[in-house]
Amino acid sequence: MAVRVVGFDGDDTLWHSETRFHVTQAEFRDLLHRHVPEADVDTRLSEMELKNLAIYGYGVKSFTLSMLETAIELTQARIPTSDLEVILGWGKRMLMEPTELLAGVEETLRQVSQRYDVLLITKGDLFDQESKLARSGLGDLFLGVEILTEKNAESYGRVFQRRGIMAREFVMVGNSLRSDVVPVVELGGRAVHIPYQVTWQHEHVPDDELPEQGWRRITAIGELPALLEELEAA
Amino acid sequence: MAVRVVGFDGDDTLWHSETRFHVTQAEFRDLLHRHVPEADVDTRLSEMELKNLAIYGYGVKSFTLSMLETAIELTQARIPTSDLEVILGWGKRMLMEPTELLAGVEETLRQVSQRYDVLLITKGDLFDQESKLARSGLGDLFLGVEILTEKNAESYGRVFQRRGIMAREFVMVGNSLRSDVVPVVELGGRAVHIPYQVTWQHEHVPDDELPEQGWRRITAIGELPALLEELEAA
Repeated sequence: MAVRVVGFDGDDTLWHSETRFHVTQAEFRDLLHRHVPEADVDTRLSEMELKNLAIYGYGVKSFTLSMLETAIELTQARIPTSDLEVILGWGKRMLMEPTELLAGVEETLRQVSQRYDVLLITKGDLFDQESKLARSGLGDLFLGVEILTEKNAESYGRVFQRRGIMAREFVMVGNSLRSDVVPVVELGGRAVHIPYQVTWQHEHVPDDELPEQGWRRITAIGELPALLEELEAA
Repeated sequence: MAVRVVGFDGDDTLWHSETRFHVTQAEFRDLLHRHVPEADVDTRLSEMELKNLAIYGYGVKSFTLSMLETAIELTQARIPTSDLEVILGWGKRMLMEPTELLAGVEETLRQVSQRYDVLLITKGDLFDQESKLARSGLGDLFLGVEILTEKNAESYGRVFQRRGIMAREFVMVGNSLRSDVVPVVELGGRAVHIPYQVTWQHEHVPDDELPEQGWRRITAIGELPALLEELEAA
């Protein structure tokens, strides 16, 4: 069936994101273990992030604020201020790092954008995402950019409506089953899943909640052009 | 000339925002004066915010991170961790406060939205702004919502293009000369300025940089429906 519009997720689909959180989180763990050697830092930070999600939303600034709060709480405010200054610095470093593209992204995007309308559909912090896109050098390849607070059937539906897209002519490409596959298939669109090396816990979907059809999995973005042709022929 | 679309700014046009920053900033000043009685806290915080703007963008999370960094820097890391915890709490409080509408907003919006297409065009943190809109109860009155990282001629131009708006049929209503008036008039649209009781320093515009025509000033949003009729008749 014809494909007219292809949506791409950004974080961990086009550029590395989660590995950077992991790198910082490992430093955070080491820093806290100097004060509370027995603490399960990762679990506590993860709980703090989920607790704060409804207040802060996604993104590096939220992550930084949750690290600070976890550090204070786990050490019962015994952590020295100079260590908190270090954590603040990590957040800035993450926000200023160059955007590091995954292998094959630029060639694939160039190829796909010649044949289809290409959108970036990503979630997270507006400022951070726009800044990453600007630093990626890929901006000109996208017909449009949509930054959503959450990716669900409702928010995809609004994008379709706003841009005059019919679900059946739309294919979403991304690394998250929860955000890129399930809601799009629910609306009658198709999806291509490209797993990333690391997945944030929050994005996991139990197998029995996955749609039975309407989506495909590839291992690298370079396989996408051939798959899109196949989907069109099907 | 016909008016078809009316854009409204959010912060300090529809709901209170800057006064809340001022309230928190006063508490911050008091807290820091306990450690550094002579420090010019407001100036230092303002400088920190501007320095961090390119990294953090606008919004409460950015403000909170800048308060923390200012507190550490001004006290040369002598501020106790428990005080930083207090600052973190202020940020959360600001993000969770109910949205407090300015006087006359709801009636005016209801009236204007019956006659024109009404958009919310605001800048700042995506998550925070969507959350404020949801808490405002005004969501249904807007045909669309645009949250921009910066309000300038380029970003307004993209909104016009995306939504098929001609500048001459557009009127922007807001409290900021810099963000709501100057760029819209530059594009050939019209603007209505409603000054708020407090203006963030960053939003000031020198008088000689103001456009000579294309915009009007009213003192309260309740005057808007009559002014729009006047603009249509002109």
